[in-house]
Amino acid sequence: MPLLLASATDHSSILLALFVMLAAAKIMAEIFERLRQPAVVGEILAGVIVGPSVLGWVAPSEVITILAEIGVIFLLFTVGLETKPQAIFNVGKRAVLVGVLGVILPFIAGYFIAIAWDGSFAEAMFIGAAMVATSVGITARVLGSMGLLDKETSRIILAAAVIDDILGLIILSLVSAVGQGSVSYAGIAKTAAAAILFTAFVALIGSKIMNGLAPAIDRLRLSTPFFNLGLILCLGLSVASIYVGVAAIIGAFLAGMALAEATEGNYKMHKLTSGITEFLVPFFLVNIGMQLDLAVFRDMSVVALAVIITIAAVITKFVGCGLGAWGMTPREMGQVGVGMVPRGEVGIVVAQIGLGLGVISGHFFASVLFMAVATTLIAPPLIKIFYSEDHDDDGDEDVVVETDVSDNFTRIG
Amino acid sequence: MPLLLASATDHSSILLALFVMLAAAKIMAEIFERLRQPAVVGEILAGVIVGPSVLGWVAPSEVITILAEIGVIFLLFTVGLETKPQAIFNVGKRAVLVGVLGVILPFIAGYFIAIAWDGSFAEAMFIGAAMVATSVGITARVLGSMGLLDKETSRIILAAAVIDDILGLIILSLVSAVGQGSVSYAGIAKTAAAAILFTAFVALIGSKIMNGLAPAIDRLRLSTPFFNLGLILCLGLSVASIYVGVAAIIGAFLAGMALAEATEGNYKMHKLTSGITEFLVPFFLVNIGMQLDLAVFRDMSVVALAVIITIAAVITKFVGCGLGAWGMTPREMGQVGVGMVPRGEVGIVVAQIGLGLGVISGHFFASVLFMAVATTLIAPPLIKIFYSEDHDDDGDEDVVVETDVSDNFTRIG
Repeated sequence: MPLLLASATDHSSILLALFVMLAAAKIMAEIFERLRQPAVVGEILAGVIVGPSVLGWVAPSEVITILAEIGVIFLLFTVGLETKPQAIFNVGKRAVLVGVLGVILPFIAGYFIAIAWDGSFAEAMFIGAAMVATSVGITARVLGSMGLLDKETSRIILAAAVIDDILGLIILSLVSAVGQGSVSYAGIAKTAAAAILFTAFVALIGSKIMNGLAPAIDRLRLSTPFFNLGLILCLGLSVASIYVGVAAIIGAFLAGMALAEATEGNYKMHKLTSGITEFLVPFFLVNIGMQLDLAVFRDMSVVALAVIITIAAVITKFVGCGLGAWGMTPREMGQVGVGMVPRGEVGIVVAQIGLGLGVISGHFFASVLFMAVATTLIAPPLIKIFYSEDHDDDGDEDVVVETDVSDNFTRIG
Repeated sequence: MPLLLASATDHSSILLALFVMLAAAKIMAEIFERLRQPAVVGEILAGVIVGPSVLGWVAPSEVITILAEIGVIFLLFTVGLETKPQAIFNVGKRAVLVGVLGVILPFIAGYFIAIAWDGSFAEAMFIGAAMVATSVGITARVLGSMGLLDKETSRIILAAAVIDDILGLIILSLVSAVGQGSVSYAGIAKTAAAAILFTAFVALIGSKIMNGLAPAIDRLRLSTPFFNLGLILCLGLSVASIYVGVAAIIGAFLAGMALAEATEGNYKMHKLTSGITEFLVPFFLVNIGMQLDLAVFRDMSVVALAVIITIAAVITKFVGCGLGAWGMTPREMGQVGVGMVPRGEVGIVVAQIGLGLGVISGHFFASVLFMAVATTLIAPPLIKIFYSEDHDDDGDEDVVVETDVSDNFTRIG
């Protein structure tokens, strides 16, 4: 009965926004499924449609951003749950090469495009940094829905995304320091060392600790103790990641990976977790679409810049990461290449930092934003094409096109 | 890598707050399970401990309030899923009597206590209104965890809580109008009629519509179509409820009830839904505990007032609702009585409205807040006692004390 209270009215408008986002996302997902296109693309486009660019029914807000962030955190947690540490370590060397080449090429391309467009040195550094970002959530969602997370190229993409995030952190620290006019190499080295140590420590030790604790966890009085512990570990390592300097999703992925062996075949836990992702991931996807401001593209020079940056972003990531997978088949190299293309929310955050520091100008910001959303829309169909023969897609009715990542546990439960 | 951005730092502090709340809630739930006390009490006390009153690690905020509200919305949705409309209609007459008597007695008691404590007329009306509120979420959680939601007294409590909420809305409209100095009886009648029509319409027709649509829903390409439709319906009817004037949880309960028959035995959907409640309900419970400000109780006269209001709140609701169940066994009358005792977030919202209108003074606000939290802490152990023989509690190790409400679906899946 809170209709009389101002703050209650705010609640109702927030709940209304969430309802509109969720309904739009699910309707667009359904339409895209029927068109045999990736559901994630439909859900991001739902955000473009209901967001400020077209209908203006919903605008980005703090609550939506937090829900979106919790959504992608649990998405990566779910992916981690299906990734045993050994599977990542086995592809370690190749993933490092993929991550490094996938950082260098896009950075150089972004830097020189900005310089060619009369950008300042600091501006060019920022555009380069924004090109480096990889949003592994999108790829994980698409591969998970196709049941292909356990493929070798999928594991390379996941591991390379972690490495990519750490390199991205170092580059962002560097360009932010340049933007603020004071570079402390010792400070940056300290940040980088903390990020690397944290990630390596959790990846190496986390699973062993959880496997050791498993019998004790099982004796807890809480219902579904592994699920409840997983929730706490997922949020805890996400927060720790942010404080160390890497993205929250890295911590969430590591939390999932730490529990992967202890909870293997725990159908109930995987189902409960995917209840959260099915509810919250649409807010993450719709929120990406809502960031797009189509109005800036009335200026044709911005359109040209945005298109060039986007093409460069796709090609450099595809070529850089693909080359990193040298020694595999051309098809597998292509799979790794396309999987790293989406920039998503990470590219948007980098651009927002640049804008916040007053380093990058409006047309560069708009173009990077466009690139982040466009690469995220382009990648899923490419992923489907490059993985199509591995996927059980024989064209008949029982094709599983959109299903949560834990569905391949059904056979166990 | 968002460590450099001010708003990103805010995200990390919000995520940290969520982590602290969740971890504290689950630890306290585990401790209370071991003490054979209701887990909900532990989770509310976790809020008192980590909140401003004791440790001050976490404070109420907009994001937390929204997550808490989504949590209780999905809790009532889950309860609705296990409640077939016919089961509610069968207890309708008795529930009306329980609801009405459970509103009249507490209102009179609150009114006269406030007058005796030198409260103004408007102030006394507000204290009475705050005494009327019932927070059915707490009771539903306890009964659900004991697997007793299908008992006749449970259904009476659920139906009476809906009636209680509509009566509470009318009273709140009335006292708010008095507080603002202008009473429009036509306006209040319109609000009341809209609330009653909306609730009755959805309760009567919702289930028929969903049963009719079930085959079409099943043909959707979305994974777990009933779950996805349930999410949309739950948020949609919650928002509609607020606009009509009743609490969001009423809409969520009606949404669940509309789907109860169509999704009976749909183990997967119930499991996915309970993943959301297991994650979000702790924020609802901890948030209630965080509202308590122990500092005001350094003034002994406030302590006395708070204790008197609390005792009156427990006795009047217990007696009023118990008498409403006249004709049942004394034990069942007691079950209905204790089930309606918790005031929880509804009582807090009424007090906040009074404070916002400048109608009630600080010591009355503090006392009503204390009453809302205290009744919510007192009720669960009473519910356990009054229902103890119905519950399969033979003292041995396999007693199910805290389990999500959908656990009794395991036999179907």
